[in-house]
Amino acid sequence: MKDISLDAKLRELAALEADLHNRDFLLTWEHTPAELRSILLTAQCLRGLHDAGRSLRVFDTGLAVSIFRDQSTRTRFSFASAANALGLALSDLDETKSQIAHGETVRETAIMISFLAEAVGIRDDIYLGEGDRYMREFAAALQEGYEQGMLSRRPAVINLQSDLDHPTQTLADLLHLDRRFGGLDKLGGRKFVISWAYSPSYGKPLSVPQGLIGILPRFGMDVTLVHPEGYDLLPEVIELAARQAAAGGGAFHVSHDMAEAFDGAEVVYPKSWAPMQVARRRTELLRKADQAGLKALEKECLDENARHASWQCDEALMKRTAAGSALYMHCLPADISGVSCEKGEVSKDVFERYRIETYREAAWKPFVIAALIFLTRVPDAQATLRRMVDSGTPRIR
Amino acid sequence: MKDISLDAKLRELAALEADLHNRDFLLTWEHTPAELRSILLTAQCLRGLHDAGRSLRVFDTGLAVSIFRDQSTRTRFSFASAANALGLALSDLDETKSQIAHGETVRETAIMISFLAEAVGIRDDIYLGEGDRYMREFAAALQEGYEQGMLSRRPAVINLQSDLDHPTQTLADLLHLDRRFGGLDKLGGRKFVISWAYSPSYGKPLSVPQGLIGILPRFGMDVTLVHPEGYDLLPEVIELAARQAAAGGGAFHVSHDMAEAFDGAEVVYPKSWAPMQVARRRTELLRKADQAGLKALEKECLDENARHASWQCDEALMKRTAAGSALYMHCLPADISGVSCEKGEVSKDVFERYRIETYREAAWKPFVIAALIFLTRVPDAQATLRRMVDSGTPRIR
Amino acid sequence: MKDISLDAKLRELAALEADLHNRDFLLTWEHTPAELRSILLTAQCLRGLHDAGRSLRVFDTGLAVSIFRDQSTRTRFSFASAANALGLALSDLDETKSQIAHGETVRETAIMISFLAEAVGIRDDIYLGEGDRYMREFAAALQEGYEQGMLSRRPAVINLQSDLDHPTQTLADLLHLDRRFGGLDKLGGRKFVISWAYSPSYGKPLSVPQGLIGILPRFGMDVTLVHPEGYDLLPEVIELAARQAAAGGGAFHVSHDMAEAFDGAEVVYPKSWAPMQVARRRTELLRKADQAGLKALEKECLDENARHASWQCDEALMKRTAAGSALYMHCLPADISGVSCEKGEVSKDVFERYRIETYREAAWKPFVIAALIFLTRVPDAQATLRRMVDSGTPRIR
Repeated sequence: MKDISLDAKLRELAALEADLHNRDFLLTWEHTPAELRSILLTAQCLRGLHDAGRSLRVFDTGLAVSIFRDQSTRTRFSFASAANALGLALSDLDETKSQIAHGETVRETAIMISFLAEAVGIRDDIYLGEGDRYMREFAAALQEGYEQGMLSRRPAVINLQSDLDHPTQTLADLLHLDRRFGGLDKLGGRKFVISWAYSPSYGKPLSVPQGLIGILPRFGMDVTLVHPEGYDLLPEVIELAARQAAAGGGAFHVSHDMAEAFDGAEVVYPKSWAPMQVARRRTELLRKADQAGLKALEKECLDENARHASWQCDEALMKRTAAGSALYMHCLPADISGVSCEKGEVSKDVFERYRIETYREAAWKPFVIAALIFLTRVPDAQATLRRMVDSGTPRIR
Repeated sequence: MKDISLDAKLRELAALEADLHNRDFLLTWEHTPAELRSILLTAQCLRGLHDAGRSLRVFDTGLAVSIFRDQSTRTRFSFASAANALGLALSDLDETKSQIAHGETVRETAIMISFLAEAVGIRDDIYLGEGDRYMREFAAALQEGYEQGMLSRRPAVINLQSDLDHPTQTLADLLHLDRRFGGLDKLGGRKFVISWAYSPSYGKPLSVPQGLIGILPRFGMDVTLVHPEGYDLLPEVIELAARQAAAGGGAFHVSHDMAEAFDGAEVVYPKSWAPMQVARRRTELLRKADQAGLKALEKECLDENARHASWQCDEALMKRTAAGSALYMHCLPADISGVSCEKGEVSKDVFERYRIETYREAAWKPFVIAALIFLTRVPDAQATLRRMVDSGTPRIR
Repeated sequence: MKDISLDAKLRELAALEADLHNRDFLLTWEHTPAELRSILLTAQCLRGLHDAGRSLRVFDTGLAVSIFRDQSTRTRFSFASAANALGLALSDLDETKSQIAHGETVRETAIMISFLAEAVGIRDDIYLGEGDRYMREFAAALQEGYEQGMLSRRPAVINLQSDLDHPTQTLADLLHLDRRFGGLDKLGGRKFVISWAYSPSYGKPLSVPQGLIGILPRFGMDVTLVHPEGYDLLPEVIELAARQAAAGGGAFHVSHDMAEAFDGAEVVYPKSWAPMQVARRRTELLRKADQAGLKALEKECLDENARHASWQCDEALMKRTAAGSALYMHCLPADISGVSCEKGEVSKDVFERYRIETYREAAWKPFVIAALIFLTRVPDAQATLRRMVDSGTPRIR
């Protein structure tokens, strides 16, 4: 196979100054645009090779360890798929859920599970103020283990969703946009609306909207964040989005009028999240294991949510978007009115119209994760990728 | 290794008109005799190669996804073994048990877990009227995902036991019979008795007896189904068995006298199952999560079972079989009187005499599953098998 | 890579008369010193190869089955790592915990999970008088399965901790001592103290102290077992330790004064265990599922423990050791005063000083397990190891 598009991507990749080898991947905003582009290009190459029936295997053996401190079918399978595609075996660390571990426990666990590991994927998004911190503590323990000679290599810590960011989701989202608009360089100036939407559940993480405002303006998009008063994201991420918009040629606005925000949008991403203030109080209550307090907070929050039940993405709203045909996006699963709940984030007709598109959006995630492991762990990633494109082996013998 | 018997099997395989590539495998009666024979021959070849120390690996990477909606150690390990032997990594979808999922949930889940999957093995045998339906809904979602380009290949759905059929068990049973009688062509006219037997438990699936009457007459066997009045199987499967017996040269009878049925039998397969009517009521109660109703039904059914406690396969019954030495078969685990329960399906002495044989029967299952994945997923399965026989690599380097 | 030290180890290995092929590994004292040395040398070679980036893969496919009848993160990951490094896929048998299985259940389970297995790792350390017995019953079933032709190969049963011994831990401990003192031949005469230590928990297994006294004197060490009156180990293991000390040139003493025992020690291993008599009573109560009895026994034992709360390894005790700088060892996790509990086995400052060393100690375990699987399952293990050293393939392609 001599795939011209893969060849072009490899040349584009070679032109970037990006080196992720031996690093972790926790927040997109800790990485340069070139690094983000190199991940996206690598993901596209890996997917192209896979679709062409090529094997993506680079590891003869090795473990990919997953730590899910929250339930997850989709991300779990994406990580399992990525690990397997590269030749790593999945090993799941089943931690007693909802426990906040620190200190010696984290340090010891990090070493004990990593003797033959290449990557550790962590999902820890329940406690605001905890997930990212846990990942850094874990990574520091691995670093010490490597420097002190307990580990002969330094596994990469991959953020599979923290309290701050959900990079594997937002990078998959960018690849979906790339495909929709014909290239990352075609995103500049397009209006992207991240909207809060009603859900009969409470306490959804902030990481998806935060991750989106943290990355899209860097690719020149005109981003509007819209939510009811009080459903704030973390102020430091809001400031970051504004700063990055200025630097990246994009724009960033905050609004509280969903209908108005949809006007002229080319992409809409309506989803529920818990207000930052609620997430913070929830973390405190969880820390104290205050069940009564948690019940009370849930009731309070659901009552508040109910006041915004009209924040649903329906056909009327979609009509206001550019040419009435904005791209609807969602990280799944969506709360679909009349399908998965009585009233939810999106009407049945809108979701059904974009259902296949949301699956396509999700389809990028295994390849994004594979790209992250590939770039952080393979010593000469570009040369290896070139070899896979030029003379790779078929996946089925 | 130049194995003459494998060579003969490969030639036999080549003579069959059977193509299972890119298909699912849900019910044996949806497949032609040639297709069933090709599975059995392939399973024998794979086992022969394995026993000779050859590697059966055909996939460099890839996932085999298992969905067990009922507990299972044996089938789980058979699927894990088959997947591993071919080079696939197992990934288990741990669904909240006893939940009947439909619609968007099934469609979405099917795609999300299949981006890099080759096969999806499903066991869903608890709800009469649900298991097979679920598998078809799942398969349809995969088909859509493949046609719409979300999946670059179409994973095969493999029935690991549904409410209707248990094909990996009955195909393993046929291989056991082949070995016992010296070939599938030696089965014609032999009397095979599928008998209900007493068990202190309630609610065992109908799929094993249904699967047996659905396949054995097609291989010319003289099949007698015997059970107490009221312990009916699904009428459509009964009709199918009769039809297929006529077409396949076999015979099919239903009787209610266990002792008489054993007269002259060459094979007996005594096992418990719940009456179809009970299974149907149970599905309704489970749907409504009616715990009190389920309790009442269980009591009613156990009381009814107790009236037939004499339906136990013991030495007296075995004496009535052909030369007093019919082959005793069971899908395991058996309810053994005085061993796993006070009174059960089979007496201790009969089981102990055939214990090793029941293990031999079970030993075929991993290879049957491997054959199903191999034939549905490897593009030119016969040529690949030929290559494995002629110049395969050892499993231990 | 031409590694001189690996070459030396291979020559040393060749000089030993040791053949573990097709055997199980349950107790170190069932094996000759040459066999134990061959395991240690193989583990060192495998680790050397791994650290040099070589692949340790010898199996193209195959399963490693784990049966953990007690919770375990560390041993679980060690086994998963070892299996993966050699090319085996892990398959976990999730038995209903705390159930004592015997007879037909064990025989059948052993066969059903082993059709394509190479190794079965079992941890069963809760019931004194049961774990080792279960492993032997399991191994006998595999042997029968192999002899009767159900299994085309005989998987090795590997003791991952029984009621009697914890060989993968003590062999890892020996490798840690080898590294510390510059060779196994440098251990002779050095004072090693295995000390009971206070823990706020109850019922820790006897297998670590028993395993240590069962192996260290064979390597010429001067072993002192010290514990409060009543915290006895099994008398047969005590006798064995004494016998082996005489035969191996080492020494074995029992004492009840922790401080005195520390005098001049070069290594100390302070950890908690339940008195043998308590472990025996506990097994009886667990067998009868006597919850009230278990509660009462726990209270009695914790009260007794509390009387020995001063048995803590602190800096004052460490000062009494040889040059005040004995090596502190632990199988982890340790009960660290002020860290994982209020008062425990070791003071915070002592543990922190040796923390990295305890991780180094643990780092050997995956390679010990890999060596055990390698030597019991690879037909010509030495030649294969020689090939891996001379012309192995890199782990990353």
